[in-house]
Amino acid sequence: MEEQNIVVVGGSAAGPKAAARAKRLDENANVTLLQKAPELSMASCGYPYYIGGNFDERNQLLATPTGVVRDEAFFAAAKGVNARVNTEVTDIDRQNKSVTCVNVLSGEKDTLPYDKLILCTGATPRRPPIPGVELDGVRALSEMQDADKLRQIRDAGETKNVVIIGGGLIGIEVCEALAESGMNVTVVEMLSQLLTFLDWELAKLVEKHVMSKGITVHTENGVAEFLGETGKLTGVKLKDGSVVPCELAVVSIGVIPNAALAKKAGLEVGDFGGITVDTHMRTSDPAIYAAGDCVEIPSRITGKKTYAPYGDLANLEARVAADNVILGDTASFPGTVNSGICKVFDLSAGSTGLSEQRAKAEGYEVITATNASLDKPGFMGAKLLVSKMVAEAKTGRILGFQCVGPGEVNRQLAEAAMAVMNGNTIYEIGVADLPYAPPFSLAIDHFITTAHILENKMAGRMAGIRNAEVKEKIDAGSTPFILDVRAPGEFEAMRLNVGETLIPLGTLRNSLDKLPQDKNAEIITFCKISMRGYEAQRVLEAEGWTNVRVMEGGIMAWPFNVEC
Amino acid sequence: MEEQNIVVVGGSAAGPKAAARAKRLDENANVTLLQKAPELSMASCGYPYYIGGNFDERNQLLATPTGVVRDEAFFAAAKGVNARVNTEVTDIDRQNKSVTCVNVLSGEKDTLPYDKLILCTGATPRRPPIPGVELDGVRALSEMQDADKLRQIRDAGETKNVVIIGGGLIGIEVCEALAESGMNVTVVEMLSQLLTFLDWELAKLVEKHVMSKGITVHTENGVAEFLGETGKLTGVKLKDGSVVPCELAVVSIGVIPNAALAKKAGLEVGDFGGITVDTHMRTSDPAIYAAGDCVEIPSRITGKKTYAPYGDLANLEARVAADNVILGDTASFPGTVNSGICKVFDLSAGSTGLSEQRAKAEGYEVITATNASLDKPGFMGAKLLVSKMVAEAKTGRILGFQCVGPGEVNRQLAEAAMAVMNGNTIYEIGVADLPYAPPFSLAIDHFITTAHILENKMAGRMAGIRNAEVKEKIDAGSTPFILDVRAPGEFEAMRLNVGETLIPLGTLRNSLDKLPQDKNAEIITFCKISMRGYEAQRVLEAEGWTNVRVMEGGIMAWPFNVEC
Repeated sequence: MEEQNIVVVGGSAAGPKAAARAKRLDENANVTLLQKAPELSMASCGYPYYIGGNFDERNQLLATPTGVVRDEAFFAAAKGVNARVNTEVTDIDRQNKSVTCVNVLSGEKDTLPYDKLILCTGATPRRPPIPGVELDGVRALSEMQDADKLRQIRDAGETKNVVIIGGGLIGIEVCEALAESGMNVTVVEMLSQLLTFLDWELAKLVEKHVMSKGITVHTENGVAEFLGETGKLTGVKLKDGSVVPCELAVVSIGVIPNAALAKKAGLEVGDFGGITVDTHMRTSDPAIYAAGDCVEIPSRITGKKTYAPYGDLANLEARVAADNVILGDTASFPGTVNSGICKVFDLSAGSTGLSEQRAKAEGYEVITATNASLDKPGFMGAKLLVSKMVAEAKTGRILGFQCVGPGEVNRQLAEAAMAVMNGNTIYEIGVADLPYAPPFSLAIDHFITTAHILENKMAGRMAGIRNAEVKEKIDAGSTPFILDVRAPGEFEAMRLNVGETLIPLGTLRNSLDKLPQDKNAEIITFCKISMRGYEAQRVLEAEGWTNVRVMEGGIMAWPFNVEC
Repeated sequence: MEEQNIVVVGGSAAGPKAAARAKRLDENANVTLLQKAPELSMASCGYPYYIGGNFDERNQLLATPTGVVRDEAFFAAAKGVNARVNTEVTDIDRQNKSVTCVNVLSGEKDTLPYDKLILCTGATPRRPPIPGVELDGVRALSEMQDADKLRQIRDAGETKNVVIIGGGLIGIEVCEALAESGMNVTVVEMLSQLLTFLDWELAKLVEKHVMSKGITVHTENGVAEFLGETGKLTGVKLKDGSVVPCELAVVSIGVIPNAALAKKAGLEVGDFGGITVDTHMRTSDPAIYAAGDCVEIPSRITGKKTYAPYGDLANLEARVAADNVILGDTASFPGTVNSGICKVFDLSAGSTGLSEQRAKAEGYEVITATNASLDKPGFMGAKLLVSKMVAEAKTGRILGFQCVGPGEVNRQLAEAAMAVMNGNTIYEIGVADLPYAPPFSLAIDHFITTAHILENKMAGRMAGIRNAEVKEKIDAGSTPFILDVRAPGEFEAMRLNVGETLIPLGTLRNSLDKLPQDKNAEIITFCKISMRGYEAQRVLEAEGWTNVRVMEGGIMAWPFNVEC
């Protein structure tokens, strides 16, 4: 076999995967990996945990599971890959199939021929065009050096106040890391909620939890100006005019694909600024493939191109690219369902598929269900899960699922991701055979129960109302009859205090005289999680009331204040 | 609407679910729940955890998530269901559509008419026809009273030695419970392994762990006789003639469906002794439905009827039965993929779909892969997972997946169950978009990696050999060249000590002279988990060796002794 030259540009996640896989597929190939940064194969998703002090050994971010640092020597010896760090690729000569690179330390230039080129150039944090953004103390978290710097700041212990700009995934992870390091943290988010992969009411539960940890959260607010003295950050002026004094600001308002090199070479780029690839991860040049945070990939739900810069997808895309480079275009990457998860102090929060908001924006007619339940039987030390399932109204196909809570969110989201990828309906999930034993789940898994609730809604048996809508009604002075069907002891311990009436479910059938006698009166029922609320609705409807709805998720999913 | 009489027989898992669901679907229905035992809605899967002292309040096994005991009064008030405990149904008069029942305390008889009958009569532990089985001290774990008794024995602290007959799911859970209560536990299993839902090599890892907790395990052995004095158990004589002294024996060799009532009424019963139902959970009598441990249901993989007495399925089947009773035969139950999971001291172990052994018995041509890896990045306090995936050789369709380890088995099995139910192939799983963040999984999830390994095997790139086969070769005096490609430090810490040669992967390309110079010599490579073992195979094949195989799962999946 003739030796072929494979050049891979970018050495973070996708690049090393593509290079190593290509070499495994063809031991005779000449595989070169060019990396601008001084490190290779950084576990960049682990930066927040390094910054927060979960572990102290920086090299763990760079090491194999057996502790070997993945440097140039490692790639040469173990992977048979010629890796070159501190090496930036400046040009692609598509005509002659070569790349020009420069050593960023020595300035030395080189030209490398390729038979196949794989671009894994990654992404760069978005920087807001705001006065003062150049001040010392305004940082991002993208490179290993950013992680090093934030860890140094933590270890020095001198920085007391920090503002996080952007309440997305990375913003929230950094927020936790710095708060756990003892800093006063303020999070500023332009939109009306944190973590926009969640719908508002679930995001609000996360926000409540974040605030319970002493974090200040400003939503629907932005940064007007970074304030400084002698070049050093002293505070952040917000759009509402208020000033938050701080010595450190971390900007995490998303990333933009590094597509400049590809663009310069005339490769096609998409609407999100990412390199355009087909299902084989091949760019508009048949000799050039691309993978990772620099590309756009299709949504497996809508079929439209989207930008999904996730570390796991980068690896999978890179593997497909390498397969196709070596074996011909045999492998396909079907795209993303936007599965994401993060730890937020004592909660986990994640989502797969489309949120209600996003599904509606995409033109879907949807129906949703919110479910609050324990993750396991109570006697096993169970914890709460609050979920929302979004399904296509016509077919019952599950379009998305979100889950928040101190409970076992991980399994729930994994199940949901599988369901969304497979186009499962709520009816299919309603009879799913999932592993069950008390240490691991409820007898009817939370995900299945959520499908059951949605099924009851689809069939018109359960009429739900969102807690946010109930709150709006109350705030607007509307007076629905709000019926709490929990037990007196539960009411004593915690209640909405919005003028509700307590009639425990067990006494409801004998207490119908306490209800509005107008059978068309608006009645909203709820309980702890709203199973009993639903049962109350069924009872009242059988007795002739026509306008009864259940507040979904009950008091456990109520994102506003409660009285204790 | 005319009031219809719904009678449900059996009040453990399926019965209460069917009754409550039927009432929710038709508040005007007259729903009666007849239960022979004194309790209702027992969380019987929780018995081992009560026995083992995970919690002390017996009523937690009977209570709703908010702590209300589900007794007759609860069912009447909260569910609108007329529940009658201590009430055994003795006859079904299908002609006149009525059941005869008797109060087991008072002897009082009653006859109840039904429009629709739902049988949820459960199952009974198999009792071995062994001399001495009637001795005081020979017990099973099925009823609440069994749990009470075993808990009393634990609390009394007088019982020192116990023999568990049967190393299945319940046997192992009881083994853990009693061992953690301070007893000396011996497990006796007829077959060559514990937990037969696992293939031998994974079951062996569980056995090793169980033995590390001080448990004695006898496989391929059975009970010849229970020995006693003055009616009290004093020991167990095994088939090999040895005697294990003990004051307590717990028999857990499986259950048989309670179908006598149905049989007596002339309803069809299947090969496993369970009541025959169609996909609507309807028996051979259109007015009678059945659900739970008393029925046979189809395997979703083979399509054949099977017996799957799982608590979660009982609930789901009951829901389908209730739907069809009230709404007409609109709902279907598709069957089981035999998903199961259990906690075994510090391990979790579970399976979904078919094991290799079972798949072969069913006539499938299969290909398998074993994968050992951490569940998360090392810096997040990761733990080991050892898995085996079984796929159809022709199509790559995943037929089964097993997972054992101290790591996050729960998520892995949930993903796998979803994949098996959906008929996913290894190629589909190889590009799955699952939720990833360092606290929750590896960047390439363990389940996906397992599919990748299998894909490499399917493509002929990786040639695997099972560790048991390697052991057999060595024991038979065969001398393959066994190549450990780990680092010297890893070798120092733990090694197979079967005559292997250590050549770290990083030095392999320069150490080819240390290998057998006969290019057809049998070479078996391995490392910690066998990623490097696979890379070594690729290198050697490129260098012309023709008979190189990777020992799957590496040293971490090696179920035999290692040298430390």
